[in-house]
Amino acid sequence: MNIYADNAATTRMSEKALNAMLPYFRDVYGNPSSLHSIGQRANEALWAARETVARCINADPKEITFTSGGSEADNQAIVTAAKLGAKKGKKHIISTAFEHHAVLHTLNKLQKEGYEITLLDVHENGLVSPEQVAEAIRDDTCLVTVMFANNEIGTVQPIKEIGEVCRGKKVLFHTDAVQAAGHLFIDVKDMNVDMLSISAHKFHGPKGVGALFCRKGIILSSIIEGGAQERGKRAGTENIPGIVGMATALEDACERLDENAAKMKKTRDILINGLSQIPHSVLNGDREKRLPGNVNFCFEGIEGESILLLLDDKGISASSGSACTSGSLEPSHVLLAIGRPHEIAHGSLRLSIDETVSEEEAKYIIDSVKETVELLRGMSPVWRDLMSGKQKFITK
Amino acid sequence: MNIYADNAATTRMSEKALNAMLPYFRDVYGNPSSLHSIGQRANEALWAARETVARCINADPKEITFTSGGSEADNQAIVTAAKLGAKKGKKHIISTAFEHHAVLHTLNKLQKEGYEITLLDVHENGLVSPEQVAEAIRDDTCLVTVMFANNEIGTVQPIKEIGEVCRGKKVLFHTDAVQAAGHLFIDVKDMNVDMLSISAHKFHGPKGVGALFCRKGIILSSIIEGGAQERGKRAGTENIPGIVGMATALEDACERLDENAAKMKKTRDILINGLSQIPHSVLNGDREKRLPGNVNFCFEGIEGESILLLLDDKGISASSGSACTSGSLEPSHVLLAIGRPHEIAHGSLRLSIDETVSEEEAKYIIDSVKETVELLRGMSPVWRDLMSGKQKFITK
Repeated sequence: MNIYADNAATTRMSEKALNAMLPYFRDVYGNPSSLHSIGQRANEALWAARETVARCINADPKEITFTSGGSEADNQAIVTAAKLGAKKGKKHIISTAFEHHAVLHTLNKLQKEGYEITLLDVHENGLVSPEQVAEAIRDDTCLVTVMFANNEIGTVQPIKEIGEVCRGKKVLFHTDAVQAAGHLFIDVKDMNVDMLSISAHKFHGPKGVGALFCRKGIILSSIIEGGAQERGKRAGTENIPGIVGMATALEDACERLDENAAKMKKTRDILINGLSQIPHSVLNGDREKRLPGNVNFCFEGIEGESILLLLDDKGISASSGSACTSGSLEPSHVLLAIGRPHEIAHGSLRLSIDETVSEEEAKYIIDSVKETVELLRGMSPVWRDLMSGKQKFITK
Repeated sequence: MNIYADNAATTRMSEKALNAMLPYFRDVYGNPSSLHSIGQRANEALWAARETVARCINADPKEITFTSGGSEADNQAIVTAAKLGAKKGKKHIISTAFEHHAVLHTLNKLQKEGYEITLLDVHENGLVSPEQVAEAIRDDTCLVTVMFANNEIGTVQPIKEIGEVCRGKKVLFHTDAVQAAGHLFIDVKDMNVDMLSISAHKFHGPKGVGALFCRKGIILSSIIEGGAQERGKRAGTENIPGIVGMATALEDACERLDENAAKMKKTRDILINGLSQIPHSVLNGDREKRLPGNVNFCFEGIEGESILLLLDDKGISASSGSACTSGSLEPSHVLLAIGRPHEIAHGSLRLSIDETVSEEEAKYIIDSVKETVELLRGMSPVWRDLMSGKQKFITK
């Protein structure tokens, strides 16, 4: 059996999106800035894609700037808000402790430049409250940036309510919606969002392309200087095939959103219920307020990396957390943020499914994880110490 | 007849490169940072592509950082050198007046931050000399950035000699090789280049992907913060299909470089000789030291935009200069830099061919341009004034 359960890291391209891209590699390969027909046809495709992406999140096409991905969009949004803030003497930014590194590292850079950063506690369930945001906002706050859904533990924040607080206090609100777009309903107007980042390859679109929604009236700062593409806010010849692929994949995902979410939730709950039976395991992130496809567990006494390699042998592609930090010896900053001690944060497993994973496959995953955890615990000196009472269990 | 003569703006994807990409959309779609097999296979492809790109320019694979394109690579190279310079109190940068905007606008930004910029004169032939560079270098110079080949008029700079001057004076040397890669022989070691930018879609690779060569020992500054991809110097999930497509296209272009250049030069010279017969026309850029596929003329008394639209009706895709600034009413900064007066800089035509343009097609282009220029001059009040002696001709 071959089961891909690492969709939070990246997804398989949909054939529909790929087929939509192919004519822009082969036939309509013009530069959209060119005046000739083949360039103008590329330009029409660019604007059609912009309209599609805008429609999917209830934005205006002119509010969409195409980027090379979610990280670039996050960087640009935050740098923009920081620069606008600095002009008014406002250099305080609010975020959370478990954001993606594209957000956290940009905030680190700004901190070195003299900005003050407040990272809100996300509690054991991986959620922040609008009240926390309201309390943290100061007169010199220029930005609140809170991710829509977490990439490791899948928790979904009360974006609309946080947006309301920010709008009420006239503070810009950005959300990293890289894990949410195509999986959760998004309406930037209703949700009071000022800036929002998405990445195509997280919803069966191509890698290397993303978008930044930026509400009308907010002037974006460029982070890539050069030509006048994207209204002068993002230089570089537009990646037309990628942009067309993203728009097609997003539209498709949004049209089938409820149906796919229902399927995924059912499979996800089978996985969560099955894996919860493993002794000394703990689900990471809120049980209900989580992405329909996200499952994340810690298993005491073992290393996440070993689980992954053994699962891979059984045909299951999974991850221990964010792919962006794999290879690092540090435990996940997300798991530490929700209060998991180092000892168990190392033994995490993230399964991120899409709608194609069947119930039968979910059962195979459960059996495989059970076997793997048992096998690894049998070889683990830590587990021996836990069982003999030399060391105390953290989990139940 | 349909003739695409705007290859400096962008090229048609080669089927070979596209076919190399397809498996990475459909099958090996994993995230190269993931530990499972499908991720590791993507990672192998990433490193194989890195080796290929490195080999094509005689670099070490670890010296290649993949970016979203040439503009990003230019930005990152210049910002890196500027930051390294500032640490040593060196804040002077040398460039030329006719660089691509990805370079010039980045330099503008640095100027606002307190850097001093010297833009060298490129003379009427569009060339700078190593002596000019040597004379301009000061004790506080941290970077020389001179484009390998110009995107509008195609002139090719003495990169190796400029590199020697910089190496001798211990100043970093960057070259924007976006128009050169895949078209001219590049050897970063022999040419004493420290940093070099390339863009895949200029050599029949995909849009949205480029690379920055950065010599060992120079620590790149990130302009996109986030995950630890590209050794922590360029965040964001790697665009594997795009990177594989770029490597395939570059390798192919480099293998057939001499053969293609010979073909293109022959066709280019037919075009130049044919168009030179049009009265009151002038070739822009050095006659010999130019890209094998570049032809750029000014025709007195007419507007470039009108030529393009009429040529498009005849099935010829051409451009008046850089696609990145089309739509702008300003005349090309490149043509102004080589001393063309405003009056004729507006009437420019760039034909950038690839090796597939035949002699027959070249003759069709010449006839079409002649007809078009005649037609437009017949309707032009400026031309009437020139012919009646009310206004003086600038060209012969």
